[in-house]
Amino acid sequence: MAPQVQIIGVADMPEVHPGDDLAALILEAVRAQGLDIEDGDVLVVTQKIVSKAEGRLVHLRTVEPSPQALELAVRTGKDPRLLEVILRESRRIVRQERGVIICETKHGFVCANAGVDTSNVGGGVVSLLPENPDQSAERIRAAIQEKKGISIAVVISDTFGRPWREGHTNVAIGLAGMSAMKDYVGQTDPHGYVLRVSTMAVADELAAAAELVMEKLSRVPVAIVRGFDYQRAEGSAQELIRPRERDLFR
Amino acid sequence: MAPQVQIIGVADMPEVHPGDDLAALILEAVRAQGLDIEDGDVLVVTQKIVSKAEGRLVHLRTVEPSPQALELAVRTGKDPRLLEVILRESRRIVRQERGVIICETKHGFVCANAGVDTSNVGGGVVSLLPENPDQSAERIRAAIQEKKGISIAVVISDTFGRPWREGHTNVAIGLAGMSAMKDYVGQTDPHGYVLRVSTMAVADELAAAAELVMEKLSRVPVAIVRGFDYQRAEGSAQELIRPRERDLFR
Repeated sequence: MAPQVQIIGVADMPEVHPGDDLAALILEAVRAQGLDIEDGDVLVVTQKIVSKAEGRLVHLRTVEPSPQALELAVRTGKDPRLLEVILRESRRIVRQERGVIICETKHGFVCANAGVDTSNVGGGVVSLLPENPDQSAERIRAAIQEKKGISIAVVISDTFGRPWREGHTNVAIGLAGMSAMKDYVGQTDPHGYVLRVSTMAVADELAAAAELVMEKLSRVPVAIVRGFDYQRAEGSAQELIRPRERDLFR
Repeated sequence: MAPQVQIIGVADMPEVHPGDDLAALILEAVRAQGLDIEDGDVLVVTQKIVSKAEGRLVHLRTVEPSPQALELAVRTGKDPRLLEVILRESRRIVRQERGVIICETKHGFVCANAGVDTSNVGGGVVSLLPENPDQSAERIRAAIQEKKGISIAVVISDTFGRPWREGHTNVAIGLAGMSAMKDYVGQTDPHGYVLRVSTMAVADELAAAAELVMEKLSRVPVAIVRGFDYQRAEGSAQELIRPRERDLFR
């Protein structure tokens, strides 16, 4: 029997506002489409609606730029208030060149602008990454588990660029209910050779797969991945962060 | 209606040998599972079987290490003959540290060991990346198109690591029949904001999605992705390579 995985977009989610019960909104949108969430599903939820529900929004008019932000504004031509927000979200700047600011966020993720985003929010407001995306994932997981009596995994996804390759892909920034990795290290292949390179970052692959049904401009901020055989665990997107001392490119 | 994408693993492929007609073997394995390839499908094929069919295999006993390979062997503790093969496949070494050799391949891909792989091949033999993975993809696409009178896209995938994040993901190294990218640049979101960051590397996301049904140790070297709305084009994985002069991390 051929292994199969289905990726089902959850469309027609309402606009999300601070304080909204995201698990309830997702379940409602799923039901409205005649779908259901099943035991063993992986729910992939885009960061943007999580940040909105958690009120991780900043009105730029309330932001007082620091001297460092003002200096960075001169070098990049960007809004100093936006830069101030980016600096507050960052542990450090990894690279700043040609208008691109690659940051290490307080969570440890390396990405442009520390994940601070001006799109899909509204005039003069920027969204920040969730404060603790693993906890965000766990809250959704626990709420759905409680309401439906099923075990699922939840991935919070965001759109990141990467070195060496053009374009962006969706990756996991929060995780609950599964291990981020699928591990082949030490196993032997059919020829008896020990496989060397085989820890797959399946949480990132799930986020990327889900993006295939998420249209950035339509309202598909959630996808159900069904049929993927994952390793149940508490799980954390921190598993995906390479420690700085083991990273050849920081 | 919810957008849906299906990922169907093609299992029970026979062992592939140099000179084999890969398109014919894939069609046979698909049929043996009671499946079919349909118009609009994306076929994701792992590099390893492509390299085997194309005879991109090297017996290490036939390799004479160069002085550079011998010197690298002292520094890395690796087999100088393997290093010689890696050097021959590389345009340059991007980073060499702690036993890890990150190369820019002759195609321009940046990856460990220039894609030279000792697993899943057999004693003393290593596999190289296809010489021209886009052409490999196009050959499979054209053969299936001719045999079945349908239009499909083909992605050749390989397993790469990446900076900053732990674990590996599958990415596209060859492409035919579709654009590698899906472009949102310049479009406006529902709030009227111009989206900044929105060129999605969908070929890489398709490769990652396909990996979810590919078990490295069982024989699922091919997956059918059905239902993904891609942009038909000649296509090339070269679209995914960031030019060195625009790369902040080379």
